[in-house]
Amino acid sequence: QGSKGILERLDAGEVVVGDGGYVMQLERRGYVKAGHWTPESAVEHPEAVRQLHREFLRAGADVMQTFTFYCSEDKLELSGNVKTISGAQINDAACNLAREVADEGGALVAGGVSQTPCYVLSHNETEVKAIFKKQMDDFLKKDIDFLVVEYFEHVEEAVWAVEVLKTSGKTVAATLCIAPQGDMHGVPPGECAVRLVRAGADIVGINCHLDPLTCVQTVKLMKEGLEKAGLKAHLMIQPLGFHTPECNLGGYVSLPEFPFALETRAMTRWDIHKYAREAYNAGIRYIGGCCGFEPYHIRAIAEELAAERGFLPPASEKHGLWGAALEMHTKPWVRARARREYWENLLPASGRPKCPSMATPANDGLTEK
Amino acid sequence: QGSKGILERLDAGEVVVGDGGYVMQLERRGYVKAGHWTPESAVEHPEAVRQLHREFLRAGADVMQTFTFYCSEDKLELSGNVKTISGAQINDAACNLAREVADEGGALVAGGVSQTPCYVLSHNETEVKAIFKKQMDDFLKKDIDFLVVEYFEHVEEAVWAVEVLKTSGKTVAATLCIAPQGDMHGVPPGECAVRLVRAGADIVGINCHLDPLTCVQTVKLMKEGLEKAGLKAHLMIQPLGFHTPECNLGGYVSLPEFPFALETRAMTRWDIHKYAREAYNAGIRYIGGCCGFEPYHIRAIAEELAAERGFLPPASEKHGLWGAALEMHTKPWVRARARREYWENLLPASGRPKCPSMATPANDGLTEK
Amino acid sequence: QGSKGILERLDAGEVVVGDGGYVMQLERRGYVKAGHWTPESAVEHPEAVRQLHREFLRAGADVMQTFTFYCSEDKLELSGNVKTISGAQINDAACNLAREVADEGGALVAGGVSQTPCYVLSHNETEVKAIFKKQMDDFLKKDIDFLVVEYFEHVEEAVWAVEVLKTSGKTVAATLCIAPQGDMHGVPPGECAVRLVRAGADIVGINCHLDPLTCVQTVKLMKEGLEKAGLKAHLMIQPLGFHTPECNLGGYVSLPEFPFALETRAMTRWDIHKYAREAYNAGIRYIGGCCGFEPYHIRAIAEELAAERGFLPPASEKHGLWGAALEMHTKPWVRARARREYWENLLPASGRPKCPSMATPANDGLTEK
Amino acid sequence: QGSKGILERLDAGEVVVGDGGYVMQLERRGYVKAGHWTPESAVEHPEAVRQLHREFLRAGADVMQTFTFYCSEDKLELSGNVKTISGAQINDAACNLAREVADEGGALVAGGVSQTPCYVLSHNETEVKAIFKKQMDDFLKKDIDFLVVEYFEHVEEAVWAVEVLKTSGKTVAATLCIAPQGDMHGVPPGECAVRLVRAGADIVGINCHLDPLTCVQTVKLMKEGLEKAGLKAHLMIQPLGFHTPECNLGGYVSLPEFPFALETRAMTRWDIHKYAREAYNAGIRYIGGCCGFEPYHIRAIAEELAAERGFLPPASEKHGLWGAALEMHTKPWVRARARREYWENLLPASGRPKCPSMATPANDGLTEK
Repeated sequence: QGSKGILERLDAGEVVVGDGGYVMQLERRGYVKAGHWTPESAVEHPEAVRQLHREFLRAGADVMQTFTFYCSEDKLELSGNVKTISGAQINDAACNLAREVADEGGALVAGGVSQTPCYVLSHNETEVKAIFKKQMDDFLKKDIDFLVVEYFEHVEEAVWAVEVLKTSGKTVAATLCIAPQGDMHGVPPGECAVRLVRAGADIVGINCHLDPLTCVQTVKLMKEGLEKAGLKAHLMIQPLGFHTPECNLGGYVSLPEFPFALETRAMTRWDIHKYAREAYNAGIRYIGGCCGFEPYHIRAIAEELAAERGFLPPASEKHGLWGAALEMHTKPWVRARARREYWENLLPASGRPKCPSMATPANDGLTEK
Repeated sequence: QGSKGILERLDAGEVVVGDGGYVMQLERRGYVKAGHWTPESAVEHPEAVRQLHREFLRAGADVMQTFTFYCSEDKLELSGNVKTISGAQINDAACNLAREVADEGGALVAGGVSQTPCYVLSHNETEVKAIFKKQMDDFLKKDIDFLVVEYFEHVEEAVWAVEVLKTSGKTVAATLCIAPQGDMHGVPPGECAVRLVRAGADIVGINCHLDPLTCVQTVKLMKEGLEKAGLKAHLMIQPLGFHTPECNLGGYVSLPEFPFALETRAMTRWDIHKYAREAYNAGIRYIGGCCGFEPYHIRAIAEELAAERGFLPPASEKHGLWGAALEMHTKPWVRARARREYWENLLPASGRPKCPSMATPANDGLTEK
Repeated sequence: QGSKGILERLDAGEVVVGDGGYVMQLERRGYVKAGHWTPESAVEHPEAVRQLHREFLRAGADVMQTFTFYCSEDKLELSGNVKTISGAQINDAACNLAREVADEGGALVAGGVSQTPCYVLSHNETEVKAIFKKQMDDFLKKDIDFLVVEYFEHVEEAVWAVEVLKTSGKTVAATLCIAPQGDMHGVPPGECAVRLVRAGADIVGINCHLDPLTCVQTVKLMKEGLEKAGLKAHLMIQPLGFHTPECNLGGYVSLPEFPFALETRAMTRWDIHKYAREAYNAGIRYIGGCCGFEPYHIRAIAEELAAERGFLPPASEKHGLWGAALEMHTKPWVRARARREYWENLLPASGRPKCPSMATPANDGLTEK
Repeated sequence: QGSKGILERLDAGEVVVGDGGYVMQLERRGYVKAGHWTPESAVEHPEAVRQLHREFLRAGADVMQTFTFYCSEDKLELSGNVKTISGAQINDAACNLAREVADEGGALVAGGVSQTPCYVLSHNETEVKAIFKKQMDDFLKKDIDFLVVEYFEHVEEAVWAVEVLKTSGKTVAATLCIAPQGDMHGVPPGECAVRLVRAGADIVGINCHLDPLTCVQTVKLMKEGLEKAGLKAHLMIQPLGFHTPECNLGGYVSLPEFPFALETRAMTRWDIHKYAREAYNAGIRYIGGCCGFEPYHIRAIAEELAAERGFLPPASEKHGLWGAALEMHTKPWVRARARREYWENLLPASGRPKCPSMATPANDGLTEK
């Protein structure tokens, strides 16, 4: 399994399970600063990053994404919370960590680039492309399997990133963090997908910003766009692990709870089962998560699709399917929960009767169009 | 700081920050099986346990509790999911891990024992005490600083445990997982505290089963009981990190969401600030958490009480107090959240409009009285 | 049936169905001014008051209370919205209307007095009693069957009212609008009941301010108090038709929704079935409603207790029991609702996802103690 | 004012306030049987119907609709709950009542016809038209001002009704109970409006089935359709007085709460203020309500648009604008509510923490397309 490339796997019809979100989970573990969201802990605290990689691997992830989010030189400089460590050092350390853990389980390593402040500030194609080129060069010094362009709100910038990264000769996956209504300039998902594939992306899809079922819907729109254009590409999805029914263009960043009170919106593992099935049914074969996805959420993807994949992930040794291990609980009413129907139909209470169930998102960039 | 014992610290009026919950967090990371809740991963996957210890230490914890929950021989045998590893092996490994990490930051190591199936099944004092003795002997072979008797629903069994553990000559802390109404036999908290102190406990309090503010209320009742009896003891609290307004005697085990859909009940870091202040104001000085407490919740205790303690924890290097680091966010409406009033007054939405805000607990053992 | 007095009926073990709330319902119909809550429309718009009486009668009410709430001279003067009509005129008109409708269906007429501003302002027994005497004299000029002392927050004032009204020789019922914690001076319900009965009340209980199940609980406490004191009296209840789980001493007046946004708290007819059964099981035999009780809520009492009473009310000709008449609906999913289990188990949605399910009551007079 | 016809008023740019819902309000008052929803009480209990007319008039309604809902011969026969009263008798009595009350306040009388079971069962234009003709002939024997075609789920049937009613020479208004998605055959609102106007309707719009803001949206789509077709007509709206955010084609009939647990969805008067303003801003000038609209909701329309109309309705003598009359309340926290901002911003709690905020509608006829 370990020796096959990402396209080989997808071409063969395999389900590829992605990993979960690093920045938000490492923020909760004490290694990432919210607001900055930069990955300097790959250098400062490699054991913490390594452990999270390992948990995702153990949960069933087939890909280790390098912990290099927002690791472009312009972003690091603007952010200002990393003074003595260079982007190149972080990229180097992050590649090492991803490789080390990937090799423990036959997983692939994907080097990731994300949107740059430079795009919004300068809108200068040459400058923006130079930033992507620099980070790509860092990756190409290391042993990585493919590249991921992710977390782009404007398809134009993502296209520029794909154009740069394709010069590496590596497979390129590209995911936007956009809503079904389209990107921040109003380009609809179908057209976004077409532009990305025409720029050279082998795999396209959606990540972050919105909840799983909304993201599945957006990927479906991308698929339709590709079909209409007579194009082919593999589909990928790595959504939020939060319920965001109110969100629109701006995504969860517009929610009043972002980023320090999102707890009550968190997905249960059973929500993830539904998501994994929906994504699979929509024809998506690269299925992972982003912010809010903890290791047990990734395991839920792997467990839902165990029949399709032919095996359970290592971490399932510590998990009874659909709550089966509750059968040995001492309380009879807990034992009664050791079955799929119970968890599939449960409507969990928040324990917060003074809180509403839906919020009003902030101004969300609709006027940017 | 590292060389002072737990009583020395408490006698000096210091705030001692406890660590958070291991079993539930390690379940989500893929190393504990829900239903069994046994700590065999101390042997199987020491790196995962070590990392969680480190995160709690980094978040400000002054005590590393050994990961030995439910690690009595009778429980391990009943549970049946650990065939080739003995309880003694787990206790040994867990002590090593706690010690190793504690030494990285001047923390103390506490060996923990919890309630036994034997008590409910046999109600035989000799048999139950023999089980505690065996686990204590495991601890005494290692370098531990004090002992914790925790997660007891019946004060009688906790008293037996204290009586055994006091023979070690070590300081003993004892926390019950009971409601303000009393233990499962109806013994009220004040009387429970008296019995525990008379049995030799140096520190008494509450852990698990109910939410922070409810647990503070129960500890207050314990304090009143001690004062009426003319007894003195230090007070300790390690509550759930979940909102459980509906709970009664049975605690969160009776909630329909236990254990796989508790996400929406999770505390935010701001809820923890309130809790830490309430606990401090109630005169409690050993303040930690149990199930649901992740590293960032422990950090919130340490940040709320930073003035009283005189320092911030290491993990605060990655956290702006009260959201201060959001000031550099690109979206103006997120920057507007970089202030205490915003987070203190936020009523977070669940994003789940088809779910209720309160549940009906299952039969909760009231009839056991 | 019509010729039997209230005590005759209650002594015989009959269930007496009370009427519902006039002021709040007539406010919605356009005849009462919220804030003032005075009953001048008995003179200004008798047809509206007559019609509401008739609807309660038709719904099964055995008693027509005169529409004389807050109709003491001091209250009318303070209120200031009635310039050209005297309290005596209103009392006269209200008695006529109640009598006219009561005679259409064998019901009894009860003349009602309620708490006075004078009590709080002067706390002068002579003055307060003079006010009750004046209103009583108005009633005694008319053909009324018994007297009701209702909506008193302080038992002391209610006792004064009972003492005055007993001089009439009529049967006197007395209901307080207090919580299980006691009246506004902290007198517990049991003691309140004892004082009222010792003052001469033949029937005691609770009305308004809190939801049905809370009021049932308070009446139970009154009953216990009477039993302990070796006293006997009939029990009466006329609670709010709103859900008020957050309320304490101050009752629904303290809720942020009072008085113009209480809609979402309204009881369904099925909630009333539960209430009527609970009240009956608690030994209460005079069962009606107050603010929020519309005619169909009174019908629900009469339908729940139809077997005990031996007959259905006239308005049941327009109501299939437990939704039976839905059987002829054109939509199959509506037909499926023509059964008791459906309505008993329904948890109705608010359709308001941005609203909480519980509010924070305002300062509620706890400090008045 | 009383002598001007409906078109004269609308042509002059006046705001015409409609009345509220009769069947659901009279069900609660004990005079209509849910499931059947037929108007026989116009004959059986004229005083109850007269009183409700009067309350709407007093609240500001400029039109009294005859209480003749579902009063076609085929519907009455199918319904089966009216054995001894003919449809002609009901129509006659209902016209008398509407006329009598309208004359008390210069209002107009509108004779209303609604959808027939015959349409769905036979789909025979001749038969269906004969039914409308019969009811129209009943109306033409009486003194009515104009005709209303309302509560039609299929525009085709509504067109047939308009075609029949236009033969009377009277002004005809036509409102469908459809969603923004279109009628039950999938005809979009814009096209529905065009067909109705081409059939002869002078006024078109929406009534019932969905909440006010959704209905405003649907009327806007009708307006756009008319503009595109170069047609002109006055716009009318009489929506539900309930929050129905989940509804789709089937409307509130599909909600689990229909028809006996809709209380928690009820609009406050402040919700109605918003609705009236939105409707006015959308260019709608005939603004009323349907099921769930009680007299105080109609008053809220008249109060919101008092400046535009130049006067307040009679019932405003018993209402302080925006809660102004609370200024004289005895509790200071209630006095603090005597202002517009308080009520406009209040998010009312349901008091029902075990209930969700949104429901799942039943199969709603989408497959009928």
